[in-house]
Amino acid sequence: MTLLHIIYILYKAPFIFHRNKVSSYGTICMCMYAMVVYKDERLFKHILCIIIVFAITVNHLRDESKEKESMAEVRNKQVILKNHVVDRFPKEDDMHVTSEATIKLKLPHGHTGVLVKNLYLSCDPVQRLLMHNKQLILQYPNYTPASPLSGYGVSKVLESGHPELKEGDLVWGFTRWEEYSLIDRPESLIKIRHTDVPLSYYAGILGMAGLSAYVGFYEICNPKKGEKVFISAASGAVGQLVGQFAKLLGCYVVGSAGSKEKVDLLKEKLGFDEAFNYKEEGDELEATLKRYFPQGIDIYFDNVGGKTLDAVLVNMRDHGRIAACGMISQYNVGVEESEGVQNLMQVVLKRITLKGFNVNDYIHLYEDYLDYVLPYIRQGKIVYMQDIAQGHLDAAPSLLIGLFSGRNLGKQLLLWFSDHFREEI
Amino acid sequence: MTLLHIIYILYKAPFIFHRNKVSSYGTICMCMYAMVVYKDERLFKHILCIIIVFAITVNHLRDESKEKESMAEVRNKQVILKNHVVDRFPKEDDMHVTSEATIKLKLPHGHTGVLVKNLYLSCDPVQRLLMHNKQLILQYPNYTPASPLSGYGVSKVLESGHPELKEGDLVWGFTRWEEYSLIDRPESLIKIRHTDVPLSYYAGILGMAGLSAYVGFYEICNPKKGEKVFISAASGAVGQLVGQFAKLLGCYVVGSAGSKEKVDLLKEKLGFDEAFNYKEEGDELEATLKRYFPQGIDIYFDNVGGKTLDAVLVNMRDHGRIAACGMISQYNVGVEESEGVQNLMQVVLKRITLKGFNVNDYIHLYEDYLDYVLPYIRQGKIVYMQDIAQGHLDAAPSLLIGLFSGRNLGKQLLLWFSDHFREEI
Repeated sequence: MTLLHIIYILYKAPFIFHRNKVSSYGTICMCMYAMVVYKDERLFKHILCIIIVFAITVNHLRDESKEKESMAEVRNKQVILKNHVVDRFPKEDDMHVTSEATIKLKLPHGHTGVLVKNLYLSCDPVQRLLMHNKQLILQYPNYTPASPLSGYGVSKVLESGHPELKEGDLVWGFTRWEEYSLIDRPESLIKIRHTDVPLSYYAGILGMAGLSAYVGFYEICNPKKGEKVFISAASGAVGQLVGQFAKLLGCYVVGSAGSKEKVDLLKEKLGFDEAFNYKEEGDELEATLKRYFPQGIDIYFDNVGGKTLDAVLVNMRDHGRIAACGMISQYNVGVEESEGVQNLMQVVLKRITLKGFNVNDYIHLYEDYLDYVLPYIRQGKIVYMQDIAQGHLDAAPSLLIGLFSGRNLGKQLLLWFSDHFREEI
Repeated sequence: MTLLHIIYILYKAPFIFHRNKVSSYGTICMCMYAMVVYKDERLFKHILCIIIVFAITVNHLRDESKEKESMAEVRNKQVILKNHVVDRFPKEDDMHVTSEATIKLKLPHGHTGVLVKNLYLSCDPVQRLLMHNKQLILQYPNYTPASPLSGYGVSKVLESGHPELKEGDLVWGFTRWEEYSLIDRPESLIKIRHTDVPLSYYAGILGMAGLSAYVGFYEICNPKKGEKVFISAASGAVGQLVGQFAKLLGCYVVGSAGSKEKVDLLKEKLGFDEAFNYKEEGDELEATLKRYFPQGIDIYFDNVGGKTLDAVLVNMRDHGRIAACGMISQYNVGVEESEGVQNLMQVVLKRITLKGFNVNDYIHLYEDYLDYVLPYIRQGKIVYMQDIAQGHLDAAPSLLIGLFSGRNLGKQLLLWFSDHFREEI
């Protein structure tokens, strides 16, 4: 084998040096130098062997580092909370959307979490509470200023360190308002197994909102056929379902909402017996309820608190039950300015039960809930009004703020298409 | 038999005429007239027979009417409500004590109720609610102006038309504020079977107050050993028992009351871990509770409502339970002036259950309660502070009014001695 043969092989053997042309040419030069200066083919062969082993090792290390580099650091758009928001309405300006952050699209070695791409983000009133400077709800960590918001969403698993999830799985659960999230505790995510229904449902009727309605109505209110049910924020993510569940059980159902359009939908699309626009009733709410419930209210599903709760208390029947699911009317004011509820004595007089609940305490009922609700969805006996904004994450702050003026019609979601991830979901 | 013999027999036979001397002498005169004028002994004998039969009949009828007369119409002193009392504190002057009414101390023929002599009358805050012009509580009829008040008491059966009660039985239950009451529905009365404990206990610890404490604590609050319990109006009829029940279960117990004397009693006599005078805390109640419950309150037994409830809500722990037994702070004001409760959002945030109850729904647990409490009473492990006024019914209005300024020290009772009934009870 002549020197020229060897040089040719080295030149044509990119599997050794293909990622490092300098090494390749350097090796050729060194081999030529050994041949020309020492005229010793054995020495040349030794040098060649050493250099090849060395080059393979170096290239392998370089490969690893290159691989890391190649998956690293894509831009990760986020919705950031600027500062805590206390005792006032939040504004869009309290958040900002930024593409400054980057994320490596690879689980760190040995990580037991999952890396997900967020597909749907759910806008929920509870997020307002997490903006507070005090930890108001034990189950959810407060937002940290200069960090992304968190919330419920539907996501796709990009990589998993968790045995029960794998790449490509669809999940729903608590994620962050950003394109990609590294979820440290993937056991909080629920794998989506039924895909014959819209994927967006898992950010609403088949997610927290749905389970809240189910648990709040069946577990907290202990309803019976024929009972009289009142629901506030009745066209919202949870209220619209409680109304439909109650109708399916054979209850008389009245809902309140904040616009004529919503009232019409409640009656015409969702099958409520009656509905009214609370904004038109003003201070007459007590009398309005009396008109709709001449014999009184058995069950009140409270999403708003405040004045509405006060008017309801007077109209409750003996042994009435109130599920306190949310009190959105009170989320944006300080305690000092909050609407004091003056009719609480009714709780004693009428042996009323007012029970707050948090859906996180009832996750174990999720499969039961799916068994209950999926057939109704498939048969078209339950419909779900969604207000799905499609677009980029930039729209998210405005959607969240809109909840507090009732701008949404049904469950508010954001289906988004990131710059990096436009595939069909 | 000579005429003189007959006159002598008639005169000495009072069994025939003893209740009617006129008849007796009249018969003698008629017999003598018949003998003297007609000199006919046979005629005399016939007249005598007719007259004797006639006299016996008349006397029998007179007996019946006399018997009725003798039991009739004793004076029945009563505490009368003059007029409904709405949205203000009641005053002694809203009631008046009168002896105008009379009552027959005999059950009307065929009556299935019982006639009782009232021995102890219980003064209860709930009576304030019955003075209202609106029916506030379904279980108790409102007071009718110009009629006696009603309330719980201990009574003795004078006559019974009910198979389960007999003369001399002691009972407790809902009676009227008057010396004697004719109870139409005696099935609402509970026969007193254990008389080794003070009879007055059946107007308190062994009556409605005791059962309220038992039911409110065990059925409504679902307590567990080691939990932190707060009780308002803690030295009152119900509160003092809840505190002792909670201590016996192994809870940490703090009570609030309205005077130093009461606070001392709670700590020294009733075994509360801590107690404080709410009047000294003013607007600092929230901070005071934080001091006594640095980790928060698991159970609040609410007897007062209003501001106290508001301050408690902030200090409740997750999954806390509030038994709404009474809201005495709100009984004397209109809804407009009532203290609005502003922290109700805590019900949602902390999944609190606020449950009103009425002891009437739990009467079926009374025997269980006796089984629970009697041994403790006999062993001296539970004490009961009673504020027993002894005297006439005239004192009753003042005692009732005193409840609302906290004048009583423990359960307020009236043990009374009527003008007609001073026997040992």
